[in-house]
Amino acid sequence: MDLLTKTIESIKPLDNEAVAQARKRQEELTKPAGSLGRLEELSIQIAGIQGRARPQITRKVMVTMAADHGVVDEKVGNWPREVTAQMVENFLRGGAGINVLARLAGARIVFVDMGVASDLKPDKQLTVKKVDYGTKNICQGPAMTGEQAIKAIEAGIEIVNREARQGLDIVGTGDMGIGNTTASSAVFAALSGKTVEETTGRGTGLNDEQLAHKITVVKRALAKNKPNPHKPLEVLAKVGGFEIGGLAGVMLGAAAQRVPVVIDGFISGAAALIATMFAPQLKDYIIAAHVSAEAGHAAMLQYLGLKPLLNLGMRLGEGTGAALGIIVVEAAVKTLNEMATFAEAGVSDGSTDSP
Amino acid sequence: MDLLTKTIESIKPLDNEAVAQARKRQEELTKPAGSLGRLEELSIQIAGIQGRARPQITRKVMVTMAADHGVVDEKVGNWPREVTAQMVENFLRGGAGINVLARLAGARIVFVDMGVASDLKPDKQLTVKKVDYGTKNICQGPAMTGEQAIKAIEAGIEIVNREARQGLDIVGTGDMGIGNTTASSAVFAALSGKTVEETTGRGTGLNDEQLAHKITVVKRALAKNKPNPHKPLEVLAKVGGFEIGGLAGVMLGAAAQRVPVVIDGFISGAAALIATMFAPQLKDYIIAAHVSAEAGHAAMLQYLGLKPLLNLGMRLGEGTGAALGIIVVEAAVKTLNEMATFAEAGVSDGSTDSP
Repeated sequence: MDLLTKTIESIKPLDNEAVAQARKRQEELTKPAGSLGRLEELSIQIAGIQGRARPQITRKVMVTMAADHGVVDEKVGNWPREVTAQMVENFLRGGAGINVLARLAGARIVFVDMGVASDLKPDKQLTVKKVDYGTKNICQGPAMTGEQAIKAIEAGIEIVNREARQGLDIVGTGDMGIGNTTASSAVFAALSGKTVEETTGRGTGLNDEQLAHKITVVKRALAKNKPNPHKPLEVLAKVGGFEIGGLAGVMLGAAAQRVPVVIDGFISGAAALIATMFAPQLKDYIIAAHVSAEAGHAAMLQYLGLKPLLNLGMRLGEGTGAALGIIVVEAAVKTLNEMATFAEAGVSDGSTDSP
Repeated sequence: MDLLTKTIESIKPLDNEAVAQARKRQEELTKPAGSLGRLEELSIQIAGIQGRARPQITRKVMVTMAADHGVVDEKVGNWPREVTAQMVENFLRGGAGINVLARLAGARIVFVDMGVASDLKPDKQLTVKKVDYGTKNICQGPAMTGEQAIKAIEAGIEIVNREARQGLDIVGTGDMGIGNTTASSAVFAALSGKTVEETTGRGTGLNDEQLAHKITVVKRALAKNKPNPHKPLEVLAKVGGFEIGGLAGVMLGAAAQRVPVVIDGFISGAAALIATMFAPQLKDYIIAAHVSAEAGHAAMLQYLGLKPLLNLGMRLGEGTGAALGIIVVEAAVKTLNEMATFAEAGVSDGSTDSP
């Protein structure tokens, strides 16, 4: 708990001086003012996060966390529990979507076993922070103990601290865990007070009947556990997951280190809901990569007050959206750093001419 | 005219066999079916365009065309005509937005002088296809002759043919030309029958009074020239621009060479309106990179039947949106080519399990 408390206390507001300098430079670059739209806003935000007028996005890391979920016993999805471990093996061999897109983004990937139900083969790309062999079934009681919830969050903080010691300019978040949209829907409903119908989607591709069953399962989990919506740790412990807690830790840790964090889809969003309750100022450090096709994600981002960069109908998870988001952030920062100013280029500045 | 006619006749439908094979492979990759959303659709489209089940996006070229516009005499914008040539010089020194974003995309840029009002210094990055020293003022008569319109389109075809001989997997389009949103609004209104109010926006940043004046100018140009909406060459000649014609040629040439073409914003869209009237099947070869902040662009894309990949509030032109679009296309093709199949990865395929 000490690490969590210390990390929360370390999160400071954006650097206003760097923000002002970056904004001024954007106005002097050879383009009509504002014409790079969100790229301009993003570059200014990253300046404020990193605390320098000329930020850099060079050392890029994706953190993709895997864990299993006891609620799979309720048959909430189409895929057997074993697929979590199988997909982690696929990650380690380089064959998954996140491998391809992180490579394109030039980001190294740190895979983390937060609580896969089986023991995975040791691998230098894999960090083992296993809290337990999957959560308990949330229809029958809490997913995990309060101690386990803290352990999960602190594991995420430890990982981002480790990466920051090596040098870290940006971090993206991703997940793998059969059953984790169910847990995320429960977290979102518990914290927001929205109906379970609003927070629950088709995950990997449920039909209408399966979706109705999944909604019933989430309702049963909430009725059984009655999580207090004002206590993020309790919500995580009662209806969350180990990777959800770990990702919340990554976000808190990144903000404490002044590192921008690009979050992926629905599961990262659930982690952000929890993390921002611990530290509301964290929101300034989060960039929502995309709005996913999972029903409820758009509402989740709105609830978080985050505007997604991309809308490509993706719903794969793993951090695939975040990897693309990192590219957009890099594009933004590069325009700020590498474009010429009007004075440098000898171009007439339109703002001083009458029409 | 021979080159234009021959090029139009060379545009064939997508390769259905390659489309089917790419679609089948997407279904076998280690992810829930459809979960990469538009990336899946894009990868399948590119397979059909290139005519191979495993397309490639390696040799990337941006074509950014510059020209001046006589309508600038009507004071339609905030920037003096000289800025067109000044910005081309900025391009050649590497200081503009398109330089930064094309570099990030790994794309070479071909800058083309289609009709800048002054002579530019020779440069190996600059191709001179100058049709004239700027168009005539469209409020007083046609922008150019019919011969000049053909010459502009054929210059675009020649450039893409030259690049294709060196090997070309994808081409992006971009523009530079003070006054060219005015010409593009006139082209869009002429071809679509939409009101000038619907097709005209603030360009580089007009206030309400300036926008009202610009709308009046476009109306006067259309009243003076009365372009026949069924004759794309006439519309181009009467109210278009040299870079608009050249970009239409790039699009037609690319499709004839089975090269996907990623179009930028409002000016590229006006070129696409003209080009697709010459060859409706061209639409299958065009990818709309983004919807720009220019009013009228969303309606233009809808009229074209194109769904933009990105919405980042950009309105810079130069091909900046197209450069980002090329990255998204590359991401799509890489997932198709580089992800493992369920069989290769030994992952259980969810589609065969009961929930």
